Amino acid sequence: MNPIPASPATAPSERTRVRRVAENARYERETVHAIVDAAYLCHIAFADERGSHCIPMACWREGEHLYIHGSNGGRMVKTLLRPETQACVTLTLLDGLVLARSAFNHSMNYRACMIYGQFEAVRDEAQKRASLDHFMHKIAPGREHEARRGSDKEFAATTVLRIPLDEAACKVRSGPPQDDEEDLHLPVWTGVLPLRRVQAAPQAAADNREPAPAYVQRWGQASQP
Amino acid sequence: MNPIPASPATAPSERTRVRRVAENARYERETVHAIVDAAYLCHIAFADERGSHCIPMACWREGEHLYIHGSNGGRMVKTLLRPETQACVTLTLLDGLVLARSAFNHSMNYRACMIYGQFEAVRDEAQKRASLDHFMHKIAPGREHEARRGSDKEFAATTVLRIPLDEAACKVRSGPPQDDEEDLHLPVWTGVLPLRRVQAAPQAAADNREPAPAYVQRWGQASQP
Repeated sequence: MNPIPASPATAPSERTRVRRVAENARYERETVHAIVDAAYLCHIAFADERGSHCIPMACWREGEHLYIHGSNGGRMVKTLLRPETQACVTLTLLDGLVLARSAFNHSMNYRACMIYGQFEAVRDEAQKRASLDHFMHKIAPGREHEARRGSDKEFAATTVLRIPLDEAACKVRSGPPQDDEEDLHLPVWTGVLPLRRVQAAPQAAADNREPAPAYVQRWGQASQP
Repeated sequence: MNPIPASPATAPSERTRVRRVAENARYERETVHAIVDAAYLCHIAFADERGSHCIPMACWREGEHLYIHGSNGGRMVKTLLRPETQACVTLTLLDGLVLARSAFNHSMNYRACMIYGQFEAVRDEAQKRASLDHFMHKIAPGREHEARRGSDKEFAATTVLRIPLDEAACKVRSGPPQDDEEDLHLPVWTGVLPLRRVQAAPQAAADNREPAPAYVQRWGQASQP
């Protein structure tokens, strides 16, 4: 049973309709956005004449697209931009280990988002620069105004690619274990062992001479979503 | 320039030879093992008539294989076991954001491992049960003797699959930013914003009646590798 979408929904396609443990499926845009925004990395599956590949890439979101960037010369960029290449982008945040009374009902708590589609290059120069600023802003808000911006040569060597979030599905599990009725009497500890991604204390480079900006001072004060 | 392998090496294949930032490539078995052992999740890329897929899966290692398990009825299990399916399994651990003085030299610290090959099913019943115990031991050492073991029906519904670690390559980045010589004078804070995966306090289920075993008591005492 799929939950009723909260608002503008991504209707499940033949590829994105979740069939295993379908009650964990989420197709609302808010969930897609929240997972893409919380993840620094995605994994991209695509195939070429050498087989299937699964590449981890830094990513960010603008509106209804997920963005990545890569070197022009890289095989991945070239392959993703071929008209015949279909990609699948998956982002997974692991939230905990779920210990049920039976081995079979063990699980994990996680937030995962899968996006199917085709990447396109951001060819407009101004848009490409603005997109890379967006990415910097996600990494370190404000730093897009501090770090030396890309030279023409650096920009020319970089491809920015994006894939629409139109064909996307999320799967989210949270909460305690679900034991079978007949296992409830078993004398086995049951609960969740949570995992968190946290910010550890910033490490200034040995040759750094500048005071820490706000986003560095804040780093390490809080765990991340 | 690739590092000299420390010991029994996985020679890079045409698919696993790292070309981008090749000085971060690692082909030693120890590195492959360490990354697989530290990760709870992998992402698996494979293709079928509907295109490429990227599926997050729990995983564990025994010797020179990476293992996963899934439901017999699932499309992924069926597709991975077709003789023509080539898979790529990637495990990525993100260790921090690397802030250089120029936007172009920003990076991330990470440990990633890619494995190419074909999955096979573990068909021997005893071996399959032992493998699932191995998995439980990774999640919660000792719990394989506590939780109710799988019934014949549960075992029959589960497929255990494995892929050899023969064709594997790792890419590891650590340490401070690498700025261009001509950027060293720029007044920009530079360093690393570390990310850690940590264990948070165990959450016993509302209906738990048992004392916490050692692996639960230890959980939350230390950050993870």
